[in-house]
Amino acid sequence: MAEENVVFVGKKPTMNYVLAVVTQFNNNADSVIIKARGKAISKAVDVAEIVRNRFVPTAQYKDIRIGTETLQSERGETNVSSIEIVMHKA
Amino acid sequence: MAEENVVFVGKKPTMNYVLAVVTQFNNNADSVIIKARGKAISKAVDVAEIVRNRFVPTAQYKDIRIGTETLQSERGETNVSSIEIVMHKA
Repeated sequence: MAEENVVFVGKKPTMNYVLAVVTQFNNNADSVIIKARGKAISKAVDVAEIVRNRFVPTAQYKDIRIGTETLQSERGETNVSSIEIVMHKA
Repeated sequence: MAEENVVFVGKKPTMNYVLAVVTQFNNNADSVIIKARGKAISKAVDVAEIVRNRFVPTAQYKDIRIGTETLQSERGETNVSSIEIVMHKA
Protein backbone atom coordinates (compact mmCIF):
# COMPACT_ATOMS: atom_id res chain seq x y z
CA MET A 1 0.00 0.00 0.00
CA ALA A 2 1.39 3.36 -0.98
CA GLU A 3 -0.97 5.74 0.79
CA GLU A 4 0.59 8.18 3.15
CA ASN A 5 -0.95 8.79 6.54
CA VAL A 6 -0.59 12.06 8.40
CA VAL A 7 -0.39 12.62 12.14
CA PHE A 8 -0.66 16.29 13.12
CA VAL A 9 1.12 16.96 16.42
CA GLY A 10 -0.44 19.61 18.69
CA LYS A 11 -1.10 20.19 22.38
CA LYS A 12 -1.96 16.67 23.55
CA PRO A 13 0.55 14.50 25.44
CA THR A 14 3.42 13.14 23.37
CA MET A 15 2.41 9.49 23.82
CA ASN A 16 -1.01 10.13 22.21
CA TYR A 17 0.76 10.95 18.96
CA VAL A 18 3.24 8.09 19.35
CA LEU A 19 0.29 5.73 19.65
CA ALA A 20 -1.35 7.25 16.55
CA VAL A 21 1.81 6.70 14.47
CA VAL A 22 2.38 3.16 15.77
CA THR A 23 -1.26 2.30 15.07
CA GLN A 24 -0.92 3.44 11.46
CA PHE A 25 2.19 1.33 10.96
CA ASN A 26 0.41 -1.66 12.55
CA ASN A 27 -2.44 -1.11 10.08
CA ASN A 28 0.04 -1.78 7.28
CA ALA A 29 0.87 1.81 6.41
CA ASP A 30 4.23 1.97 4.62
CA SER A 31 4.72 5.64 5.39
CA VAL A 32 3.51 8.01 8.07
CA ILE A 33 4.01 11.78 7.89
CA ILE A 34 4.32 13.59 11.21
CA LYS A 35 3.46 17.30 10.87
CA ALA A 36 3.70 20.14 13.38
CA ARG A 37 3.87 23.91 13.58
CA GLY A 38 5.46 26.37 15.99
CA LYS A 39 6.31 25.12 19.47
CA ALA A 40 4.89 21.67 18.68
CA ILE A 41 7.86 21.05 16.36
CA SER A 42 9.99 19.85 19.29
CA LYS A 43 7.24 17.43 20.27
CA ALA A 44 7.00 16.10 16.71
CA VAL A 45 10.70 15.21 16.84
CA ASP A 46 10.15 13.48 20.20
CA VAL A 47 7.27 11.50 18.67
CA ALA A 48 9.35 10.36 15.70
CA GLU A 49 12.31 9.35 17.87
CA ILE A 50 10.17 7.46 20.39
CA VAL A 51 8.44 5.57 17.56
CA ARG A 52 11.75 4.62 16.01
CA ASN A 53 13.66 3.78 19.19
CA ARG A 54 10.95 1.94 21.12
CA PHE A 55 8.15 0.70 18.87
CA VAL A 56 9.01 0.42 15.17
CA PRO A 57 12.77 -0.18 14.91
CA THR A 58 12.56 -0.79 11.15
CA ALA A 59 11.17 2.71 10.55
CA GLN A 60 13.52 5.14 8.86
CA TYR A 61 13.41 8.83 8.04
CA LYS A 62 12.71 9.15 4.34
CA ASP A 63 12.53 12.94 4.34
CA ILE A 64 12.53 15.77 6.86
CA ARG A 65 11.23 19.08 5.54
CA ILE A 66 11.00 22.42 7.30
CA GLY A 67 9.23 25.53 6.09
CA THR A 68 7.16 28.57 6.97
CA GLU A 69 3.38 28.88 6.89
CA THR A 70 1.43 32.12 6.99
CA LEU A 71 -1.54 32.14 9.34
CA GLN A 72 -4.40 34.64 9.41
CA SER A 73 -5.14 35.97 12.88
CA GLU A 74 -7.15 38.91 14.26
CA ARG A 75 -4.01 41.00 14.21
CA GLY A 76 -3.14 40.26 10.60
CA GLU A 77 -0.77 37.70 9.17
CA THR A 78 1.75 35.84 11.25
CA ASN A 79 4.44 33.45 10.10
CA VAL A 80 4.97 30.16 11.84
CA SER A 81 7.60 27.50 11.20
CA SER A 82 6.55 23.99 10.27
CA ILE A 83 8.07 20.53 10.03
CA GLU A 84 7.13 17.38 8.13
CA ILE A 85 8.86 14.15 9.11
CA VAL A 86 8.25 11.32 6.64
CA MET A 87 8.79 7.92 8.28
CA HIS A 88 8.99 4.81 6.16
CA LYS A 89 8.88 1.24 7.39
CA ALA A 90 11.14 -1.09 5.42
CA MET B 1 36.38 27.06 2.18
CA ALA B 2 34.94 23.77 3.32
CA GLU B 3 34.91 24.20 7.08
CA GLU B 4 31.57 23.84 8.76
CA ASN B 5 30.48 26.28 11.41
CA VAL B 6 28.11 25.34 14.19
CA VAL B 7 25.53 27.54 15.93
CA PHE B 8 24.02 25.91 19.02
CA VAL B 9 20.51 27.24 19.70
CA GLY B 10 19.47 27.56 23.35
CA LYS B 11 17.57 29.95 25.60
CA LYS B 12 18.56 33.32 24.12
CA PRO B 13 16.22 35.30 21.82
CA THR B 14 15.77 33.87 18.34
CA MET B 15 17.35 36.85 16.59
CA ASN B 16 20.64 36.36 18.47
CA TYR B 17 21.06 33.01 16.72
CA VAL B 18 19.85 34.39 13.37
CA LEU B 19 22.56 37.04 13.63
CA ALA B 20 25.17 34.39 14.47
CA VAL B 21 24.29 32.34 11.39
CA VAL B 22 24.15 35.37 9.07
CA THR B 23 27.52 36.54 10.40
CA GLN B 24 29.10 33.19 9.59
CA PHE B 25 27.75 33.27 6.04
CA ASN B 26 29.02 36.84 5.66
CA ASN B 27 32.44 35.65 6.80
CA ASN B 28 32.50 33.37 3.75
CA ALA B 29 31.33 30.18 5.41
CA ASP B 30 29.86 27.82 2.79
CA SER B 31 27.93 25.82 5.36
CA VAL B 32 26.50 26.51 8.78
CA ILE B 33 25.10 23.80 11.04
CA ILE B 34 22.32 24.83 13.41
CA LYS B 35 22.03 22.44 16.36
CA ALA B 36 19.48 22.27 19.17
CA ARG B 37 18.08 19.91 21.78
CA GLY B 38 14.71 19.51 23.46
CA LYS B 39 12.36 22.48 23.43
CA ALA B 40 14.93 24.61 21.58
CA ILE B 41 14.33 22.50 18.46
CA SER B 42 11.35 24.67 17.46
CA LYS B 43 13.52 27.77 17.82
CA ALA B 44 16.25 26.22 15.67
CA VAL B 45 13.71 25.76 12.85
CA ASP B 46 12.62 29.40 13.29
CA VAL B 47 16.27 30.49 13.07
CA ALA B 48 16.87 28.54 9.86
CA GLU B 49 13.69 29.80 8.21
CA ILE B 50 14.32 33.45 9.15
CA VAL B 51 17.88 33.25 7.80
CA ARG B 52 16.65 31.77 4.53
CA ASN B 53 13.58 33.96 4.03
CA ARG B 54 14.97 37.31 5.14
CA PHE B 55 18.76 37.40 5.08
CA VAL B 56 20.45 34.73 2.94
CA PRO B 57 18.01 33.81 0.14
CA THR B 58 20.62 31.65 -1.61
CA ALA B 59 20.96 29.38 1.43
CA GLN B 60 19.50 25.90 1.06
CA TYR B 61 18.97 22.97 3.37
CA LYS B 62 21.61 20.39 2.58
CA ASP B 63 20.60 18.00 5.32
CA ILE B 64 18.22 17.90 8.27
CA ARG B 65 18.97 15.21 10.85
CA ILE B 66 17.07 14.33 14.00
CA GLY B 67 18.18 12.02 16.76
CA THR B 68 18.25 11.27 20.46
CA GLU B 69 20.99 12.17 22.93
CA THR B 70 21.40 10.71 26.39
CA LEU B 71 22.17 13.23 29.11
CA GLN B 72 23.47 12.51 32.60
CA SER B 73 21.54 14.28 35.34
CA GLU B 74 21.31 13.96 39.13
CA ARG B 75 18.38 11.62 38.67
CA GLY B 76 20.13 9.34 36.21
CA GLU B 77 20.02 9.28 32.45
CA THR B 78 17.46 11.18 30.44
CA ASN B 79 16.88 11.09 26.72
CA VAL B 80 16.45 14.30 24.77
CA SER B 81 15.69 14.78 21.10
CA SER B 82 18.09 16.74 18.92
CA ILE B 83 18.15 18.35 15.50
CA GLU B 84 20.94 19.36 13.14
CA ILE B 85 20.05 21.62 10.23
CA VAL B 86 22.86 21.92 7.67
CA MET B 87 22.51 25.12 5.63
CA HIS B 88 24.58 25.60 2.50
CA LYS B 89 25.00 28.81 0.56
CA ALA B 90 25.22 28.29 -3.20
